[in-house]
Amino acid sequence: MRIDGKAYRTIWLDEDGATVSIIDQTLLPHRFEIRRLTSAAEAAEAIAVMRVRGAPLIGAAAAYGYALAARRDPSNVALRDAYDQLLATRPTAVNLRWALDEMERAVLERRVSERAAAAYARAGEICEADVETCRLIGLHGAALIRAAARKKPGKPVNILTHCNAGWLATVDWGTALAPVYAAHQEGIPLHVWVDETRPRNQGASLTAFELSGEGVAHTIIADNAGGHLMQEGKVDLCIVGTDRTAANGDVANKIGTYLKALAAHDNGVPFYVGLPHSTIDWTLEKGVGVIPIEERSAKEVTEMTGRLPDGALATVTITSPGSPAANPAFDVTPARLVTGLITERGVAPASRDGLLALYPERGQTK
Amino acid sequence: MRIDGKAYRTIWLDEDGATVSIIDQTLLPHRFEIRRLTSAAEAAEAIAVMRVRGAPLIGAAAAYGYALAARRDPSNVALRDAYDQLLATRPTAVNLRWALDEMERAVLERRVSERAAAAYARAGEICEADVETCRLIGLHGAALIRAAARKKPGKPVNILTHCNAGWLATVDWGTALAPVYAAHQEGIPLHVWVDETRPRNQGASLTAFELSGEGVAHTIIADNAGGHLMQEGKVDLCIVGTDRTAANGDVANKIGTYLKALAAHDNGVPFYVGLPHSTIDWTLEKGVGVIPIEERSAKEVTEMTGRLPDGALATVTITSPGSPAANPAFDVTPARLVTGLITERGVAPASRDGLLALYPERGQTK
Repeated sequence: MRIDGKAYRTIWLDEDGATVSIIDQTLLPHRFEIRRLTSAAEAAEAIAVMRVRGAPLIGAAAAYGYALAARRDPSNVALRDAYDQLLATRPTAVNLRWALDEMERAVLERRVSERAAAAYARAGEICEADVETCRLIGLHGAALIRAAARKKPGKPVNILTHCNAGWLATVDWGTALAPVYAAHQEGIPLHVWVDETRPRNQGASLTAFELSGEGVAHTIIADNAGGHLMQEGKVDLCIVGTDRTAANGDVANKIGTYLKALAAHDNGVPFYVGLPHSTIDWTLEKGVGVIPIEERSAKEVTEMTGRLPDGALATVTITSPGSPAANPAFDVTPARLVTGLITERGVAPASRDGLLALYPERGQTK
Repeated sequence: MRIDGKAYRTIWLDEDGATVSIIDQTLLPHRFEIRRLTSAAEAAEAIAVMRVRGAPLIGAAAAYGYALAARRDPSNVALRDAYDQLLATRPTAVNLRWALDEMERAVLERRVSERAAAAYARAGEICEADVETCRLIGLHGAALIRAAARKKPGKPVNILTHCNAGWLATVDWGTALAPVYAAHQEGIPLHVWVDETRPRNQGASLTAFELSGEGVAHTIIADNAGGHLMQEGKVDLCIVGTDRTAANGDVANKIGTYLKALAAHDNGVPFYVGLPHSTIDWTLEKGVGVIPIEERSAKEVTEMTGRLPDGALATVTITSPGSPAANPAFDVTPARLVTGLITERGVAPASRDGLLALYPERGQTK
């Protein structure tokens, strides 16, 4: 999608056919910088410190990290090390393991001399498949926005989203925001309520940034505000992403998602989750109490980075001195609060039966 | 309560018997500064920019603002101007009008020469009554914490609170936190989850600051985290304050309170609201969709003030450039989500009948 009118993806193979470039998302929205990755260690660091984030993009970055490892040393031992190093970066998103398993399957059966080429090829395919998957999520989700628009002719459809599940969280298009972009490109009038998404503010920084780039009307709100807006009838539907979806339709997503799902349910506002198949963890019968929740640094709560009046970046401590902070990064929304799962194959009820209807091949393996 | 071991109230008459001092809460937790108010205009400014905040303290500050006006010019016209100026500062808290009406009743029937003395006397009474009211809220609320402690012997009771309804929101003791202080002084082991409370962070700044001063164990969390903690069984009860309670038990409080009440209800966690009688608006049959919600500056969302590493204060812009923000400051939690109202007269179900059982005199005037 576009930044200052120029089309980008979040990750791409450089012209040398070896190194990989990413947009350093820790600097957004304050600075736009491209960063070059040359090794699995650099890819792992980029994932761990969230230069790249968002479940699908984490998978893509891990895939390219594995390819970078294969270029340096395609031995079994080295590739196993790279796999472990990359897998250890983040605990919640299932795409990470999915992408690394895909890489292993494509690479380890090859002769050592062929492995690097096979790894780059498979990483490239994973990226292209992600773009196509997200485009299809957009197609199916746009139909929901179109239906909402028909109910209020001439007025914008108000969509609430949490965190960033836009194109910056994927290779392109996004998951939760792919329907928004598709509907916007179709000319459907819409407006997005952007949850700030404390503590890392991915909404106020990344989602607002990318909606601006595409010219989509939006308003940033504190995470606390969404329930009130729903009570006031100012939200027509919610769409969020997910880092891991259990087989019963429970969805792990950025901390606070559960609260918005509760408010949507209490106010009769449809609550949708956009996801690619790689986010579904078929091994989990349910998600609540089961999906591991990453505990991140308290500094994400106690400190805040932004622009000083002169444009320089500064980090300030915002909390009372000496008070500790806790920082669980995700929560799990029970399937009963989810109106539907928007996947690349269509919209499913958030249930095992709903998911199996879209992915019947998974029923056979059970 | 204590700051660095020294006992304070939030507002007091100076030794000259004329000017009034407040703790400038806009500077907390970064700076502790006392500010002297010499006129109704200065009191109005202090309320409007939130040097003093919290429904009970707003009432007390307005009362002293009215007294400062009476000292300068006790004529009907001047006092009516002061009333209007002070009332216009904040729209949601009902204590503001309540306190000003009390002042008018005490002052306007007097001769002009007696008005200033009567005004100071009544403002002082309002403050003393607030302290006693909050002490009683603490007494009744501590019984709930004691009961929770009996269910988990030897383990701390985990209490979640939102925003600041502690002693800094009142003259002393607080509303939501009065039970916490009373239970803590009684020796009941407890721990408070402190919602950051974006956008103004009164939790991370004021609540954490005052809990530290009293030595109460606490942990700051992003507003998004409370639902997850409740799912995990890490919250035994919630206690919040309120800026206006409708006669049916609907409670207006800081934006985001409704989301925590939904999560408490979904997880079987008791959700209590601490309030003095002056917060009850008997003229409102219900609160949802009726109580006016203050819309504050978008800058509270887009900017953040904190301490640089060298201790200097700085304000940084944290959102994507050019993206607008909205900032509704309160929401209304429906009575059906409230387990009980902790008042100075005891704990009532959140309903008209519940409130009338505690305040039978209100049933007669209806």
